[in-house]
Amino acid sequence: MQSWKKLGVIAGGGELPVVLAEHCETTGRPYFIARVSPFADPALDRHPGATHGLGAMGARIDAMRAAGVDALILLGQVPRPDIGSLKLDAAAMAMLPAVVAAMGQGDDALLRALLAEHEKAGFRVVGVEEVMADLLATSGAWGAVTPDERQLRDLKRAALIADAINKFDVGQGVVVCGGLVLAVEAQEGTDAMLRRVADLPLTVRGSADKRRGVLVKRPKPIQERRIDLPTIGVRTIEGAASAGLAGIAVEAGGALAVRRDEIVAAANRAGLFVYGFTPEEVAP
Amino acid sequence: MQSWKKLGVIAGGGELPVVLAEHCETTGRPYFIARVSPFADPALDRHPGATHGLGAMGARIDAMRAAGVDALILLGQVPRPDIGSLKLDAAAMAMLPAVVAAMGQGDDALLRALLAEHEKAGFRVVGVEEVMADLLATSGAWGAVTPDERQLRDLKRAALIADAINKFDVGQGVVVCGGLVLAVEAQEGTDAMLRRVADLPLTVRGSADKRRGVLVKRPKPIQERRIDLPTIGVRTIEGAASAGLAGIAVEAGGALAVRRDEIVAAANRAGLFVYGFTPEEVAP
Repeated sequence: MQSWKKLGVIAGGGELPVVLAEHCETTGRPYFIARVSPFADPALDRHPGATHGLGAMGARIDAMRAAGVDALILLGQVPRPDIGSLKLDAAAMAMLPAVVAAMGQGDDALLRALLAEHEKAGFRVVGVEEVMADLLATSGAWGAVTPDERQLRDLKRAALIADAINKFDVGQGVVVCGGLVLAVEAQEGTDAMLRRVADLPLTVRGSADKRRGVLVKRPKPIQERRIDLPTIGVRTIEGAASAGLAGIAVEAGGALAVRRDEIVAAANRAGLFVYGFTPEEVAP
Repeated sequence: MQSWKKLGVIAGGGELPVVLAEHCETTGRPYFIARVSPFADPALDRHPGATHGLGAMGARIDAMRAAGVDALILLGQVPRPDIGSLKLDAAAMAMLPAVVAAMGQGDDALLRALLAEHEKAGFRVVGVEEVMADLLATSGAWGAVTPDERQLRDLKRAALIADAINKFDVGQGVVVCGGLVLAVEAQEGTDAMLRRVADLPLTVRGSADKRRGVLVKRPKPIQERRIDLPTIGVRTIEGAASAGLAGIAVEAGGALAVRRDEIVAAANRAGLFVYGFTPEEVAP
């Protein structure tokens, strides 16, 4: 049940905030888009809201308060900032010690610190599942293709590795093909990782004719699920298809799907599976 | 103590077999270079030996036996083969079931299977430390630069992550900068990983003016140390320097240094540290 009057969306880059804004508009729920400049998609400009730089914490919080926002969600990508080059306002300066202390401990600590600062400012911070449950990954095969035995073995191995390394706040993606670990994602992001796989020799990876291997994205065990769930979209399908993979898999309830209908259509066209697994399914 | 009559070197790509061949020549020890075509460096052609394709297992073993080889070492890189395109002789065909079974379990299982097949053929398989201990990484700082407190923290974090992921026969390298994991190596190799780090935004990595971050390479816990220790060379230093790193670190006794003098000279020139740590130094 929705338990807030107006939802503030602190919107970074990518399509996810656009999808949510359109959802709020369509369902008639009060909302306010706090666009983080220059990262927020221009498609957000027509929605009610305001635009501020990353460092204008105080101005952003004031604008949300003035608009009657009582709950907020952080959504979309923001590149890790160079503190020195940010234009920090007074409120941001006050948050600085906690944020800088968190920066040395990885992305996750940084995001948790930002979230805590917004809670201190009096907002309830909500997760995407409270706002738009349709975005959350479901279990089982999403499209026309289902993973076979061999692909499920690769899927399970990739899920185990993702689990082991995500404890260290590394990235979220692992590619395994025929038992061999082809790539592990860190700061470069999933798209760049998939391009790298596409550059590997055909002796270790699949191709459009003979698809092999699986991309798995899992949330970090320490991950603050209100901020930073792994995301897949049509581009992920396209990247996986170019890398010759047989399919992609995410944790059911532990990943976000941007425009799921388009994801499924693209996967069906390319002959890839998209699969949501439960932690039990991939347990050792 | 050397306990063999003549050493066979099954030589893949890279400089390591060349360095060893020159060492055998200089020290006057009987040796035989079994060049794996087309990977072995042409600089090996002038040394006593023979050249065979990867699949000519029987011919290679016969040639080594005929030359009086009783112990052998596998050295240098060989790309993961496409079994279908290899020209397998009868002896290789006989090894095939064990090798194919191992291929699905990662590089390490594959190398162990190859090694076991050579032992079955009657050779003693030796490690590099028995042949040329100078190649093995030593402990402490190798050159003029020593890691500071902050760099030791990054080093330790990278070492922990490398240890956790290497259990899965992933690669051997991890880059950490200011607590943040910038890259994890899998099939692409260390040089490609360092190029990727060099492409990351300057907000997360160091630069030539302000070096930050550490590359750590560790052996896999399950690694067959007679075959596949992580290797560093001048190119590793150059890659780390281009990526803005402060230094590189390996496990003492758990990595090979190709032309150590040149490594140290290049590191000193660029202002990087090269450090050999003991497992105790990086324990949690």
